[in-house]
Amino acid sequence: MSEDKVSELATPALVVDADALERNIALMAAALPGDRLRPHVKAHKCTSLARRQAAAGHHRFTCATIRECEGMVAAGLGEDLMLANEVLDASRIGVLLEAGARVTLAVDSAETVDAAARGGVREVIIDVNVGLPRCGCQPADAGRLAELARGRGLSVRGVMGYEGHVMIVEDPAERARQCRESMEQLVAAAADVGGELISAGGTGTYDCNTWATEIQAGSYALMDAQYNRQGHAFAQAVFVLATVISTAAEWSVANAGLKAFGMDHGNPEIGGSTVWFCSDEHTTFSPPRPVGDRVWLVPAHVDPTMAYHERLYLYSGDEVVDCWPIDLRGW
Amino acid sequence: MSEDKVSELATPALVVDADALERNIALMAAALPGDRLRPHVKAHKCTSLARRQAAAGHHRFTCATIRECEGMVAAGLGEDLMLANEVLDASRIGVLLEAGARVTLAVDSAETVDAAARGGVREVIIDVNVGLPRCGCQPADAGRLAELARGRGLSVRGVMGYEGHVMIVEDPAERARQCRESMEQLVAAAADVGGELISAGGTGTYDCNTWATEIQAGSYALMDAQYNRQGHAFAQAVFVLATVISTAAEWSVANAGLKAFGMDHGNPEIGGSTVWFCSDEHTTFSPPRPVGDRVWLVPAHVDPTMAYHERLYLYSGDEVVDCWPIDLRGW
Repeated sequence: MSEDKVSELATPALVVDADALERNIALMAAALPGDRLRPHVKAHKCTSLARRQAAAGHHRFTCATIRECEGMVAAGLGEDLMLANEVLDASRIGVLLEAGARVTLAVDSAETVDAAARGGVREVIIDVNVGLPRCGCQPADAGRLAELARGRGLSVRGVMGYEGHVMIVEDPAERARQCRESMEQLVAAAADVGGELISAGGTGTYDCNTWATEIQAGSYALMDAQYNRQGHAFAQAVFVLATVISTAAEWSVANAGLKAFGMDHGNPEIGGSTVWFCSDEHTTFSPPRPVGDRVWLVPAHVDPTMAYHERLYLYSGDEVVDCWPIDLRGW
Repeated sequence: MSEDKVSELATPALVVDADALERNIALMAAALPGDRLRPHVKAHKCTSLARRQAAAGHHRFTCATIRECEGMVAAGLGEDLMLANEVLDASRIGVLLEAGARVTLAVDSAETVDAAARGGVREVIIDVNVGLPRCGCQPADAGRLAELARGRGLSVRGVMGYEGHVMIVEDPAERARQCRESMEQLVAAAADVGGELISAGGTGTYDCNTWATEIQAGSYALMDAQYNRQGHAFAQAVFVLATVISTAAEWSVANAGLKAFGMDHGNPEIGGSTVWFCSDEHTTFSPPRPVGDRVWLVPAHVDPTMAYHERLYLYSGDEVVDCWPIDLRGW
């Protein structure tokens, strides 16, 4: 197998349409230029891809893990990172700051403020719960928490609040209405907290969230079957390329399965086919195709799909134009 | 964070109870000694764990990918590997054979027989469909396919057929009945094919599949929530250890999520708690617990869970006794 041609790549292979990726990045950069977008690297876990986002004008990034922060700093992309997640041991962030990076850490409790201060963190953002039952303090507690942080010598850059429960609403009008509800709470908390940042949003609300000063979208660059159903202008750019290894009267089997796809949003999709189920290394689908046929599978959920793969192949037509390591995996 | 104590491990961490693992391995080795078991490494993807299975008397292993074969050979465990999966480019197996390993390749079509012959494979096994809509030829075609393989100079070691649709049947009597149905087809195909191997089964049928000459079980060593519901004697040995990073009036959030768990069988389980949902790096559950509490999560499906992690920590009590790389990931 050669790595020069898509048609000759060993499968399963994670492949990204270079033109679609560039169009998605350009489209988002036009809608949310520069610091209006803080791209979330958890969606792709790839510093080479983050570098394309930086080339489009975005120099502030969002991370979900300390490992993502470390990798971004190592790649020279640590100008203004936000770890939009709570940690109880921030010492590895302190190390990054000592080396000259800028990392702002989310806090939502006295314990996480304490962890930030003990770990050598200098800047925090108050994480506010805006309706998703996950992290974030109650909106009414945000001001008190900011005071607590300032009392520990931490600089408070503002508030963040992820309206994740809104991302999956398929009707745009209803999505916008629920987004407003969430952001009204966040804006009220921002008034209590102070600071310059109101950080929120994602690919599902990038076009209706007009309250946040910056949007933490990530999925838009590569997309997935879930977000495709929302009718955004972004094109599907990432696929798992597989090969039909077995075929029967009523079905065929492609050689990519549960270890190649995040499955929480359901099965991957194959255009024109019905996916029956996935096993560890297989996807059974119909109608059947000849053994040897290439199959292009669209992940249902891009983030946990990327986390399974060591590398992606960037392609244009049948040419493999680059190979990028998925270098932000793990913790 | 120290790596000497479980209570001080950075989270999320994949942890394995050393005593439970050894008991599971011993229990299976008593039920299916030596070559009666051909442990499937896809369930753990860890050559250090495979070495424990070899120490219990099993020297033949099952693999699902060429990468798993390569890793097992590199670890000195390539005495008798079966790649229980179809491939269309077998050249990397040919390389392993040149280096002195023994790998038997599954074939289920003229195309896969041809790929085996072209790739330098010497021994094949006829993969027979016994009811799961996945790979495998029709039982009536097995003899013809064996002749085709022999005509290409390949040695045919027998038949394999995975009754995967039976594994998930929770009632033991019904599971045994469906297993018999599948295996009667496989035994009939074996008579047409010849050879010494009838390879089948898994953790769900290890105790009722009396037709196969060898059982390809893998999950028994570490177990998962799905198999626990079948009431086997194997103990849960693998957990994802997480930490409560945020807590609210009605829920808490642990710092392990979609990138730490194979999700196709549903959410991970937490003893005494209700899991609400998982996000990329979070599991929301109730009732709430204090920030900083450790949470032990049982994966719903062990195989795709292992594939997300770089390493596992083997523990006994609060002592971390070893750290094993999950070295068979990727393709």
